[in-house]
Amino acid sequence: MECQNYNISRDVERENLNLNPLQRGGILPKEARKALHDFGDGYSVCDYCGGRLDEIAKPSLSGFLEDLAKFLQVDDVRTTHGARESKFAVMHGICEPADVIVVDGNAHYTTHLAAERNKLEIVEVPSSGYPEFKIDMNQYKKTLENAIDEYGEIKLALLTHIDGNYGNLSDASEFGKICSKLGVPSLLNCAYSMGRLPIESNKWNLDFVVGSGHKSMAASGPIGVLGMKHEWGETMLKRSPRHVKKEVEMLGCTSRGAPIATLMASLPHVIERVNKWNEEVNLSRNFVSQLEEIDGITQIGIKPTNHDLVRFDTPILHEISKFHPRKGFFLYEELKSRKIVGIKRGQTEWFKCSTYGMTKNQRDYIVDSFKEIVEKFNK
Amino acid sequence: MECQNYNISRDVERENLNLNPLQRGGILPKEARKALHDFGDGYSVCDYCGGRLDEIAKPSLSGFLEDLAKFLQVDDVRTTHGARESKFAVMHGICEPADVIVVDGNAHYTTHLAAERNKLEIVEVPSSGYPEFKIDMNQYKKTLENAIDEYGEIKLALLTHIDGNYGNLSDASEFGKICSKLGVPSLLNCAYSMGRLPIESNKWNLDFVVGSGHKSMAASGPIGVLGMKHEWGETMLKRSPRHVKKEVEMLGCTSRGAPIATLMASLPHVIERVNKWNEEVNLSRNFVSQLEEIDGITQIGIKPTNHDLVRFDTPILHEISKFHPRKGFFLYEELKSRKIVGIKRGQTEWFKCSTYGMTKNQRDYIVDSFKEIVEKFNK
Repeated sequence: MECQNYNISRDVERENLNLNPLQRGGILPKEARKALHDFGDGYSVCDYCGGRLDEIAKPSLSGFLEDLAKFLQVDDVRTTHGARESKFAVMHGICEPADVIVVDGNAHYTTHLAAERNKLEIVEVPSSGYPEFKIDMNQYKKTLENAIDEYGEIKLALLTHIDGNYGNLSDASEFGKICSKLGVPSLLNCAYSMGRLPIESNKWNLDFVVGSGHKSMAASGPIGVLGMKHEWGETMLKRSPRHVKKEVEMLGCTSRGAPIATLMASLPHVIERVNKWNEEVNLSRNFVSQLEEIDGITQIGIKPTNHDLVRFDTPILHEISKFHPRKGFFLYEELKSRKIVGIKRGQTEWFKCSTYGMTKNQRDYIVDSFKEIVEKFNK
Repeated sequence: MECQNYNISRDVERENLNLNPLQRGGILPKEARKALHDFGDGYSVCDYCGGRLDEIAKPSLSGFLEDLAKFLQVDDVRTTHGARESKFAVMHGICEPADVIVVDGNAHYTTHLAAERNKLEIVEVPSSGYPEFKIDMNQYKKTLENAIDEYGEIKLALLTHIDGNYGNLSDASEFGKICSKLGVPSLLNCAYSMGRLPIESNKWNLDFVVGSGHKSMAASGPIGVLGMKHEWGETMLKRSPRHVKKEVEMLGCTSRGAPIATLMASLPHVIERVNKWNEEVNLSRNFVSQLEEIDGITQIGIKPTNHDLVRFDTPILHEISKFHPRKGFFLYEELKSRKIVGIKRGQTEWFKCSTYGMTKNQRDYIVDSFKEIVEKFNK
């Protein structure tokens, strides 16, 4: 049979400034590029496996997992196929169908899907709504207490550390305190934080933290991280009675190739960049305030931002789209002609973007481009 | 913090002849190497996603999945994180805890783990035992009928197409017939077949086929394939009521990067090699008969072999290890000095290996090396 042409190329996105927040934290440093090359073939990490992925000595997966646990301040850590797969595993491991869990109102859709796949009921902690969409910890506590009153037992409380719509940073330490006091296991979804900013899981008194290698840890996807307090190891890392080396909830092994090799190769780079998170936030705040100099562009979410993912209301761009011959496509096309990509074709009323890891000059260039575009058409 | 040295290199295994059967089917052709490079960063396939991984138009995941379905003769197909994750998804999608499933006695350990993680009971179809370890279809039918008599309903029957211990090929067509007649949904585990030999799922009347991209489809791991008859789509591909585009059992999206790009890029190469499967089997049989010229080396499993994965009893090598100064390590070291790797350090009583994709000359060189080693020490 003849195959279609799948257009398997990504030059445009790789060779231009990509503002797509999904893409900024997963760019490989050169060490990981080398690992990608070495471990690109099929089942590559399994040459020296004695039956346990997490105990492979060459490359040293065991040494890597020790370092990773230290970095995240967790007792036990495993890799999974992504943050969503980590969340699914926790819910699958510690809940039963029809159990109730509490989740913040800014949760990623995969939190809902992981719960749905496990047939769990979700009680939601509302955010403060437009324009801040903040998850207030008093509100979280109130909702959790009410849920306990109503349902008797809450098997899991989940908080999104940085949400994917507004880049709001929530109070993980306070969350850990509340859950611990109420005796509810806590899970922090660090998909947009782990690998960007410091995670102090045990200090924050969290039962579980999950992260995404491809979203925020400079790794080739798909790969996730699942960290836990030691007391959960017995449940989550229970071994098969039949295959005594293999962990059931992990289906034996998870990351069987390039993703884990790149995650390993990137860890020193990730540790270094996490130490510089404050500089990154300052650059992001500066980017926001420069963009807000344009009339008709306003950041929403908590202000000033505490993250690189930022969302803007952009009525001015929407106004332009009404009379521009290319309609809503004008913005995408104008940006692309300036070598800037990552904002969806046709989108003008609002957008979210990230300049994570870009230089000050690159960020300034992006701001100038927006200013130029608005000036060109706003007559 | 300082990281340990993880030894993230794989030169030895990449630059020598690797006999590890896990590794032979996952070697990337040059098109996939290019895709690996282009799609190596993080969340790389998601630039043009409108909410559904399987509907992404650039690169054309939708076109690829159409071709893949045609290639496997299935109605619907999705990628997953591996054959084990596909098996878990089917069991999770169509079974309830405490349900009983029937599984062949040569099943891969991940079949057992997928069942254990889903809290299912396993009834096993025994193999014929030493030395053939064949799964006989009359035996399968008898076991399945008895299981139905005993438990009332069997929710799934699973057959391992090629098992990972002996490389035995089982009769998928007869299996499909039996299951269909008895009204039991059938799943064929094609981890070592899909991508090596033709899969005619609908013709064989199978409900589900699962495969492994990193084991047998020339893709960078981890990635799996899940094909099904249309009637199962409603259950397996059910969408979230809350996020109406997203499929719950797939957790929304599965392969979010290089694995799927490499699987796509490799498909034309895979289709071509599947067409040449008979040549491959002949080369493998030739390899076996040459190795069996050595007294004290015998293939076990079905003879002549129908696959490249073959297992040998090797009493002669074990004899040598008894007086060799390097004990059991002699074989590994002698092979390595001849640039042959992939047989575990210390193993001499038996080994399994594969020469899949090697040239006739390379295979002859390996045979000659074994003959040389035996001659050198068997005095």
